[in-house]
Amino acid sequence: MLVVSSPSGAGKTTLCKMLLAQHDDLVMSVSATTRPPREGEQHGSDYFFVSPDEFKHMQDENQLLESASVFGNHYGTPSEPVEKLLNEGKDILFDIDWQGAEQLSEACGDNICKIFILPPSGHMLEKRLTSRATDSRAVVVKRMSAAAREIDHWSQYDYVIINDDLDIAWNELNAVFVAERHKTNRLVFLPEFVQTMLDELK
Amino acid sequence: MLVVSSPSGAGKTTLCKMLLAQHDDLVMSVSATTRPPREGEQHGSDYFFVSPDEFKHMQDENQLLESASVFGNHYGTPSEPVEKLLNEGKDILFDIDWQGAEQLSEACGDNICKIFILPPSGHMLEKRLTSRATDSRAVVVKRMSAAAREIDHWSQYDYVIINDDLDIAWNELNAVFVAERHKTNRLVFLPEFVQTMLDELK
Repeated sequence: MLVVSSPSGAGKTTLCKMLLAQHDDLVMSVSATTRPPREGEQHGSDYFFVSPDEFKHMQDENQLLESASVFGNHYGTPSEPVEKLLNEGKDILFDIDWQGAEQLSEACGDNICKIFILPPSGHMLEKRLTSRATDSRAVVVKRMSAAAREIDHWSQYDYVIINDDLDIAWNELNAVFVAERHKTNRLVFLPEFVQTMLDELK
Repeated sequence: MLVVSSPSGAGKTTLCKMLLAQHDDLVMSVSATTRPPREGEQHGSDYFFVSPDEFKHMQDENQLLESASVFGNHYGTPSEPVEKLLNEGKDILFDIDWQGAEQLSEACGDNICKIFILPPSGHMLEKRLTSRATDSRAVVVKRMSAAAREIDHWSQYDYVIINDDLDIAWNELNAVFVAERHKTNRLVFLPEFVQTMLDELK
């Protein structure tokens, strides 16, 4: 389970898409949300779009691994699809914020690797947030302060990647994923594999 | 500090050379040894070749970070060059066996990342050890049993890489190195970097 968080505008979505394209056995976790679908977003692949009542029901029934509220909308990770994917031996990528990352850590412990993507500087982030659309200055300021609150939690992550050059950042993110897969305690087939080897060497 | 261990014949030397060629700021630790130089080996770059008395003196004076005996020869890592390189901000690669890795862990703690390279199978290792030279069967058997003793310690390493295809194994070793460099606790410049960013976002 790979958690990637970052302030909005740091390039997380692009980097996650590149990682998913590279690794067939890594799949994206789909969150449930109460916010309305944007143009082109698909129920079940981008989000599970649910009503506030449905969301509350999922919370009450302990069907969410983590949940958070951002700008008045609720977001959460349904536990059932995650458990299904883990049982199939897949790795799962979570695009969630620091609140979600913290809750997921508590729920799933050592099984999680948490990566934080930083922009190269505050000025650069401001530029990216400003040039995004025709948003008013007030909206940009709100986004900047939300970004600052997110960045403030960098130290609770296992890895930090600074996205200055996309190719370099992608290479680093991919390296973390490949390395994590080779951690001794994640290679569950190794004890048997080594025993066979030792028998062959006798 | 990156420790790479493996049984003889698993391709460790080739993989380490590839990693060193890729990263300018990674340097090889040079061990002291009492075994005689082989054809082409240079004092100071391949090994520090010392007499048994000199080696004992280094041990008595606590000038070795780790030491081990293999086939009657002594090997050890002089501490002074390692400290100098670390102060220069270099990463250091150690090509040592499990005994050395264990001692280095005790001496340097969390600063160390330990990687174990495995051959794809015992039969393959036997083949590699047999085809190496015109060694007698007795020598090969001795090497195989030394390899088995080394392999037996795989579980004390942080990462395990199986060297079946050299390109894949190299990619994995490189990923571990790149990932380790992006661990939050290794990025000592980050607190200041993030503070500057947060100030810019105010």
